This record gives sequence, C-alpha cells and structure tokens, in this order.
Amino acid sequence: MAQSLIRNVDVLIVPEVGECRVDAAQDIHLADAVITAIVPTGTPPPAPTAESKATEPVELVDGTGLLAVPGLINAHTHSPMVMMRGAAEDLSIDDWFNQRIWPMEVNLTPERVRVGARLACAEMLLAGVTTFVDHYFHADQIAQAAIESGIRADLAPTYFSSAGPEAIDAAIATARDLATLHPRISASLGPHATYTVSDDDLRRTADIARAEGFRIHLHAAETEAQTQASVDKHGATPIEILDRTGVLDAGALIAHGCGIRDADLPILARHAARTTVATCPKVYLKLAMGNGTPIKQLQSVGVPIGIGTDGAAVHNTLDVWESLRLVALTQKHQQNNAEWLPLSDALRLATRHSAAAANHPTTLGALEPGRQADITLLDLSAPHNQPLHDPRAALVYSVRASDVHTVLVAGEVVVRNRQLTKLDLAEVLAEARSLAHTLVDLTQGGAVQHYAP
Amino acid sequence: MAQSLIRNVDVLIVPEVGECRVDAAQDIHLADAVITAIVPTGTPPPAPTAESKATEPVELVDGTGLLAVPGLINAHTHSPMVMMRGAAEDLSIDDWFNQRIWPMEVNLTPERVRVGARLACAEMLLAGVTTFVDHYFHADQIAQAAIESGIRADLAPTYFSSAGPEAIDAAIATARDLATLHPRISASLGPHATYTVSDDDLRRTADIARAEGFRIHLHAAETEAQTQASVDKHGATPIEILDRTGVLDAGALIAHGCGIRDADLPILARHAARTTVATCPKVYLKLAMGNGTPIKQLQSVGVPIGIGTDGAAVHNTLDVWESLRLVALTQKHQQNNAEWLPLSDALRLATRHSAAAANHPTTLGALEPGRQADITLLDLSAPHNQPLHDPRAALVYSVRASDVHTVLVAGEVVVRNRQLTKLDLAEVLAEARSLAHTLVDLTQGGAVQHYAP
Repeated sequence: MAQSLIRNVDVLIVPEVGECRVDAAQDIHLADAVITAIVPTGTPPPAPTAESKATEPVELVDGTGLLAVPGLINAHTHSPMVMMRGAAEDLSIDDWFNQRIWPMEVNLTPERVRVGARLACAEMLLAGVTTFVDHYFHADQIAQAAIESGIRADLAPTYFSSAGPEAIDAAIATARDLATLHPRISASLGPHATYTVSDDDLRRTADIARAEGFRIHLHAAETEAQTQASVDKHGATPIEILDRTGVLDAGALIAHGCGIRDADLPILARHAARTTVATCPKVYLKLAMGNGTPIKQLQSVGVPIGIGTDGAAVHNTLDVWESLRLVALTQKHQQNNAEWLPLSDALRLATRHSAAAANHPTTLGALEPGRQADITLLDLSAPHNQPLHDPRAALVYSVRASDVHTVLVAGEVVVRNRQLTKLDLAEVLAEARSLAHTLVDLTQGGAVQHYAP
Repeated sequence: MAQSLIRNVDVLIVPEVGECRVDAAQDIHLADAVITAIVPTGTPPPAPTAESKATEPVELVDGTGLLAVPGLINAHTHSPMVMMRGAAEDLSIDDWFNQRIWPMEVNLTPERVRVGARLACAEMLLAGVTTFVDHYFHADQIAQAAIESGIRADLAPTYFSSAGPEAIDAAIATARDLATLHPRISASLGPHATYTVSDDDLRRTADIARAEGFRIHLHAAETEAQTQASVDKHGATPIEILDRTGVLDAGALIAHGCGIRDADLPILARHAARTTVATCPKVYLKLAMGNGTPIKQLQSVGVPIGIGTDGAAVHNTLDVWESLRLVALTQKHQQNNAEWLPLSDALRLATRHSAAAANHPTTLGALEPGRQADITLLDLSAPHNQPLHDPRAALVYSVRASDVHTVLVAGEVVVRNRQLTKLDLAEVLAEARSLAHTLVDLTQGGAVQHYAP
C-alpha cells in the first residue's frame, strides 16, 4: 500500500446532519486511493498500520493556504454535448429539442462523442468535479475519455424505444461492459425518459436492472406540463409509471423531477432508499420550465437530491459551483423563504446527497477515513472571497470554478496548480474546435427523436 | 494628444437596436481617453488627424486572441460592504437589516470604508468592471480608493432622515465636492429610500438636484410588500412619492424597483428620459423577495435598465457577469418565456442601458468612436467557453470573471494579463483582513436605522 499525504490543509467537514465546519491545518493521510486519517498537521495518524510505520508517507500536495472539500459530483449531465455549447439559445423547450438538439444528434459518431467527452472531462476536472453521472450515446467512448483524464464516472448508455430493440440491447450490452471496465467507471441503465421509452421497455429494463444489480438513470417528470401530459395520455404520472414498471423497485436516479406532485410523494417514500433525484436549476430558469425540483418535499420523504448541470447545450457550462449556487438561490425563491436551504444543507446536497445520486453513497461525498480520496483543493485568497468571514458562505455564494487549485481522484493528482496532469489541454481544445461544426450541422435532415411528451 | 492602439482584437458591437455581433481582427485607435476609430487590423483609421499622421500610435495592448467588450458597469452597489461578505447569511430581509447590517454599520469609520472600497475596486477591476455606481457613507473615502485604483465611479453620499438635517447637509456637501474632484468621478445625491427619507427631505433633495444639475440615486419599491406598506401608510406607492416630491422630475436612478406596479408605469413613462432602474437579481432570489424587477414593463415605457450587484453583504460578490447571467435567467423564468430577453437584449442592458444608469449614456457602454475607452478584453479560450459557436452566448451564459485578461479605463491599462497595474493587491488584501472583524462586531449596540418600511 502506498502511503501519502496532503499536508497542512484546511478541511471542510460535512456531517450527516447539522452544521458544516472547517477544521484548520490538517494532514489528510491516504493509503492508495483511500483516506485513512485526517489529523492536525504534524501529528501522527491514529493506530498506524505496520506499513505506515515502516515508510514515511509521500507528500502529494502541500495544502498550505488551501481548503479541501469533497470532490464535486456532477449528478446529471450529458458530457459530449459541450460540442453544442451556445448553439441553441433563447428557445422554448419544444424548439430546443425539435429544431436544434435532436436534429443535431443525427451527427453523432463515436469519434465526435469521444472528443466532446474529453473536452468535458477537462472542463470538469479544472473546476473541481471529480465524478460525473452521465447519460448519453456511445458511452464506451465517454468511458475512454474519463479513464484517460483521471476523472470518475457513472455512465448510462442511453436509448429511445423508437430506435428499436436491437439498439436497446446494444445499449444494455455496453452497460454490462462498462460495469467491469475500470475501478473508476461504473454503469447504470439509461432509458431516455418515461415519454420516449415504452412501458414494456421500461419493464424489461427494470427486470434486467434487478437481476444484474444495475440502477436506472432516466429523465422523468421534467416539468409539470410533462406530468399533466402523462396523466392525459396514460392515466398515470411519470412517477406512477416508474412505479408500475418496476423502475423504482430496481433503484433509480431521476433527472429533474420538477413535475413531481405531492400525490407522488408516498410512492417515492416507499422507494426512498433506492431513489435519488438530480436537480439542475439553471436549465429550469433558462427554458422557462416553471418551478424547479421540489427539494423540500422530496427531502421530507427521505429522497436525496444530487446537484447536476445537465448538458452544456442548455446549461452552457459543466460548472457544479454555479449549479450549487443556483440551487440555494432558486430554492429560497421557490419556497418564498430566505431561511430555507441554509449553507450547511446546500453543501450537504453537493456532497453526501450527490454521492448517493452517483450511486456511491458510502465511498464518496465526504472527507473521512474509509472514503475514496476524491478531493478538491481551493484557493480562497482572491479578492472576491475576501475577507473570509465564513468559508461555507464562500463555497455557496462567492467561489468561482477558477478558485480550484488542485484536484485528486482516487488519491491521484489530476489537476495541480490549475493544470491538468493527464490530459494535454491544447490537444483536447484543438480537436474539439476542429470537429465543432460537424455537431451543429442541421443540413443532414431527420432527428433522433421528436419531443411530444 | 497621445495616440494609442489596441491591436488585432475581436470587438463586440452592441447596436442601439437589433442583434449584437463580433467584428473579428480589429484595431481600436485611441486618442488619450477616447476611442477615435475601430478598423480592420493594419488598415489606417479614416480621416486621420494631423497629430496621428505625425506620430505612430503606441501599441497599448496586443489583442490577438482576445475579445473586446464595453467595460462592465456595476449599476448599483455599496462597495465598502465587501467587508461584511458572508457575515449575514440565510436571513429574511427584516433580520438581514435589523439583526446584522444596520447594527454592523455603527462600526463604519472613514478608514474602514476606504479599505473596503479599495478591496471592492480590486475585485471589480479584475472582473472587468470599469465603472461602479455607488451609494454609501463616507463617499469621499470611496472616491479616493476609486481614483487610486484607476476605476470610474458615480458616487452618491447616502443619508437617512433619522440622522438629522446636519448629516443630510454634510452628505450633499460631499456630493458637491465629488462632482469636481476628478475626471473619472461623478456624483449623485443619495437619499437612502422612500421609506427612510421623509417626503420633505426628498423634496429638498429634488430642489437641490434640479438647481445644481445632480441626479438622484435611491432605493424605491424594492419589493411588492414595500409598495403595499407605502400605500397603507402614505396613500401612495413609492413611485408616486418620487413623483410628487419632484425626484423623478430631477432625474433618478431607482435601485431594484421589484415592487413597481403597472399603475406606476404611466408616471415613469412621463419621466423616462431622466429615469433608470438598476436590477440585482441574485439579491431578490437570496432574500426571497418575490418577483424581480419588471424589466419588460419598464422597457415598454422606455425606461433603461442597468445591471448591478448591490452590496456584497448580500450579493457576496461584485461580479457583474454573474448578475448579467441571472438577469437573463430570472427574466425568462419570471415571464415564463424562454424566448424573452434574448442574448442581444441582455447584452444591451449590461452595456448601453447600464451606461444610462451610470449617468453617462452617451460616453460609456459601447465601443465606438467618440466614446470613452473603457474596454474589457476577455480570453475565451478556456474549456468552459469552447467550442465558441456564439461568443454572445458565452458572454451571457458561460464566461467567468476569471476570463477577464486586460482592462482599460479612460484609455489607461488598469489590469494587464490578470494583474492590477495601479493597486498593490497584497497590501489591499492584508489591510482588509486586518480590519474585517471590526466591521461585523455586534457588541457596540445600536443601529444606524431600523427596517420597518
């Protein structure tokens, strides 16, 4: 076991309940990919193992002047869509899908997806994101980009019923391959949504998920309008469809859920141990989707809420700091209560709850012995965070992604002093720029799907 | 006249109406503080003056790979409140004022205000803000910080009626001094608000403003609840009070205006040529103030809308990019229309309209011959802005303040390659940190005012 150390760093402690705090001047001890101890700087870690006695730990990072926080988790995204950043603006949700995104997605190829995913991994790592929960096509290519970059990912190969049973079989086969590919890659099943995948296909997905130990990552109840359309067409809300098809029983990450109704809550309460919801509020504002995710109601029935960005074709960034801030701000607005979702609770969503959404509830999302060493080190010394009366307030309301200084994933330094250590950024950017026009080409005709929920 | 040049830069053109565009590879020619020509790189400026023929212009900046935009304008702030950043979180508007801010403000001294203003100027310049429109106490100290830093400012020395006539006279005397102090400093009169300054004092303020050519910067109709309270107590909305006291006739910058009612619009229409409203949407979300500024309605009667941050004691940053993004996002939400406030209109608010709010409608807010050379140069090459399908989308939805590379105010380079050229940042930060505790001290007792609108 390789013993190593982040020396003399301030550490954000996010307890399961109650106030977050910062412990100043700590040493974080690691054994390979795992945190073994966090102790005041210079003191020996408790109960050292035989190995750690024998060898002095290697100093991975001098943390002096930095704040260590759990590596951020992007709880819902479509990473390769960075290739369409800024190419679908000022559109209704219908036009965004039907005039731009789904016609553009006929242009997807394995290479273009890999190039986009590499750019996305670069953007996320530099911004302190150590895990992303992805939902997209050609997920094997996304896995290669993630492995190469050093980031951690949960990948759901995506399918529509309209693509036919062979495409569904292929997506599920990809999930099986990804599940055993690499220690930093996990897989979920990825039906697109309750309005694009039939009940029969959802049932088959749930059966496979239960039999093989997958969970299911999909869009559902994205807006109240979708929920009403579901009731009108199928006599059931999207959550009721997930219930009756066995998806909730298998375990699900539900993206958005803004249209979850109070009447759905008892159903979700029954499945709370295996259900999470990812919220991406910038998208709800930008597409004028109405109220955002009903976080307070979902928390009242024990459902964890992860924070994501959705794809950059609508969110324009993969910046989870931005998303965290908007969760806190929009929740206060939505609840008409400035005291709701206080700092510590907002930080808990971005850490422990998002780890649950990433399907790693016990190994990610907190800096404590036994958890993976996915750690983001921030430099809060710039004027926009000073004076630093309360570092928790800085993390929610003033920090910028550019304050990320150094990033570790599974104990490996993947960003050091604001530079990627594994990806060649100039090459990643050049490749993305050279292919960007091919992704937004609307002359090919057709569309991968039609939005009519 | 000193002839100079920003060479080979892309330039954002914001027309008075219609779509914004980017003109690639331009030379921006300056004569002292003023833009004289913008021409394709390497071509001579049209109709050169005798002087410019005689001397080759000095290359101030090589703009290769950068995008020039009009220097941002913070249309409403209280700059020294950076000293309270993060010290008043998760509070209702009543508690924010009465439990924290107004008790803290008994600690204000000229030195503490100057130190806070220096930090604020550093933060704003590094983020590409070239002008701030301030409303605070000890404005003479703020002026010194602004002059020293190289930023431009419109300063309104602030007063409550509760402080007594001598305090009001002193604030107005300060405004008179500031009006002639320095080419980059202008002054407005600064009654605090319709609910903290009596109608008699507003009338006197308006009389002085008209006689001496000042405009008036104050808070009014911050929330619908304030408007209703005003109707209940005084039989008039805050806008009606501004009308009957002559404030609108003198010319006013109204901060927030979220509580402006449809019935107020005809009044504002009559004064549209001399009225602007500043909007700071992060604050409206964070304090759960309900709907934000009714931008669509105000635009329909010809009132320009500037974009501001308010003070960092509630906004936590002085980041106008953040504020611009939130204006666009929250307006789509508020209007329930994703097509409302499209990119070009949002950029127009941040530039031309904000210049009107800064009381410089014809000299700031656009890059065109005859305007002041207040210019922010952005580096959009980082992954979070790439690929760059639409630079206008990047400016509204993905840019970070950390993308600001170089900043000019009145033709002077005040930030070069992300470093301040005039302020010693380490000294500014050390000074702010050393005094930070004195500002948030709640043991002194008392308060500068009580919030009971």
